[in-house]
Amino acid sequence: MTAKSQVKWTDDALTALRAGEGFRLADLDPRATPGYTGDKKDGAVDLAAGLAQLAEYQERLYAASHGGDADDRVLLVLQAMDSAGKGGIVRHVVGGVDPQGIELAAFKAPTPAELAHDFLWRIEKRVPRAGYIGVFDRSHYEDVLIGRVRGLASAEEIERRYDAINAFEARLVEQGTRIVKVMLHISYDEQGERLMERLERPDKHWKYNPGDVDERAHWPAYQEAYQAVFDRTSTEAAPWYVVPANRKWYARLAVQELLLETLEGIDPQWPDADFDVAAEKERLRATMG
Amino acid sequence: MTAKSQVKWTDDALTALRAGEGFRLADLDPRATPGYTGDKKDGAVDLAAGLAQLAEYQERLYAASHGGDADDRVLLVLQAMDSAGKGGIVRHVVGGVDPQGIELAAFKAPTPAELAHDFLWRIEKRVPRAGYIGVFDRSHYEDVLIGRVRGLASAEEIERRYDAINAFEARLVEQGTRIVKVMLHISYDEQGERLMERLERPDKHWKYNPGDVDERAHWPAYQEAYQAVFDRTSTEAAPWYVVPANRKWYARLAVQELLLETLEGIDPQWPDADFDVAAEKERLRATMG
Repeated sequence: MTAKSQVKWTDDALTALRAGEGFRLADLDPRATPGYTGDKKDGAVDLAAGLAQLAEYQERLYAASHGGDADDRVLLVLQAMDSAGKGGIVRHVVGGVDPQGIELAAFKAPTPAELAHDFLWRIEKRVPRAGYIGVFDRSHYEDVLIGRVRGLASAEEIERRYDAINAFEARLVEQGTRIVKVMLHISYDEQGERLMERLERPDKHWKYNPGDVDERAHWPAYQEAYQAVFDRTSTEAAPWYVVPANRKWYARLAVQELLLETLEGIDPQWPDADFDVAAEKERLRATMG
Repeated sequence: MTAKSQVKWTDDALTALRAGEGFRLADLDPRATPGYTGDKKDGAVDLAAGLAQLAEYQERLYAASHGGDADDRVLLVLQAMDSAGKGGIVRHVVGGVDPQGIELAAFKAPTPAELAHDFLWRIEKRVPRAGYIGVFDRSHYEDVLIGRVRGLASAEEIERRYDAINAFEARLVEQGTRIVKVMLHISYDEQGERLMERLERPDKHWKYNPGDVDERAHWPAYQEAYQAVFDRTSTEAAPWYVVPANRKWYARLAVQELLLETLEGIDPQWPDADFDVAAEKERLRATMG
């Protein structure tokens, strides 16, 4: 739990939301609010308070590696079914932080050049530098999700990829990255309503893709593919967190809390001056009228 | 002037701040608030109102090229002496916009690989895609500023660069980019005070660089180099805007207003659906319980 007076969190989000041993996606209610006893109104208050706290943590994280020699960084990985609210997380949680400290990468269908490489090639290029908060809007997990559901790769290749992902992420962690892997979990019915809203509002038409309806036919297969992802890649080094997301306010608050607790774990410090402060004051004063 | 009820702007910022024919940097008071009659308190109200407006324009800009075939984009170029407030602009003006619509590039001292190419090579790689707002924190102008003041290039080469910049920017403009080139103008005394503040606050030490004091000795040469930049590169296609920046609140408000007026000039529209809305509603309904 973070240091702020968040009485509404009864448990660490990092604990309450972790997809640990035996986790079953099918058993998690997409309307639940694990670890949080407040309502939507409390959530708005806590989200606003958290924004300021996150902004300060980010600045300290950046300072610790730019004025100092810390190599800590954070990588938030966002995965979800269409319309589950990834965009809202980026806008309302990540968007509260200084853009200078964020490295955002949105992964679309791979290009021919990307397909000519291993699936992790394009991912490696976008991992965050020391001092930054990286955000992946979709990620290498697409290659074991749509890759599996649509049969874009053989079963053997999918198996290889789970292991490759675990090795890749373990390397990032060893070298200073805290990986926060989040799956936003909505229900099939909720998705239907959200897609319908896009069709009903002319200013949302551009977000609608007829392929989204085709994908809905594969809903159970995607849920199975996600379950396999949790079974195979929710590791000690880089666990998965599954966030019920039918309630948008909770999903945003929970992802913010996951980031806050992660940064609290790093506890980045303002670096000491690597120059003589008194001498610099003298030098500067000599230039002033 | 933007459509919002901004009674405090008496003139378009794009007009009031433009470095046109005969503009003299030395004649511009860094404490002035051109085009704006309000005070700091009014400025805070207008900045908050402008954030919401900018966020909507950005989403429409993005939608128009992602759901439609518009190729409009915006490139904000920020140049200034150290401590003039570029970071504050990024944080408080750009930071109010959805990070998914921003492409931010901070240009530091060039690497050996960059120096082995023409100075515009690294710039070209970071120009914004259609639908995005690009932000350059420093830019190709460093190559005719520090390049000139510190004699990193010959006078002939500097001359060549002015022409190359004009041709480069004209090409970007032809192909759909609105370039908003902003110089934040602070006074020598104000810079001294801001650097002193960094020395006085331990949480700001990491932002201080002893080289900043050395650079102050070249203040007049930098002012001349900026004047030459305005004389040679404030073109019809891509004019310069010089924003008095001793008052931080005004500088932020003015840059926001420059962006708002630029987006108003584009007036991006929600694109029409490229599918049959009624038919899609039917298809979607068939998947719902």
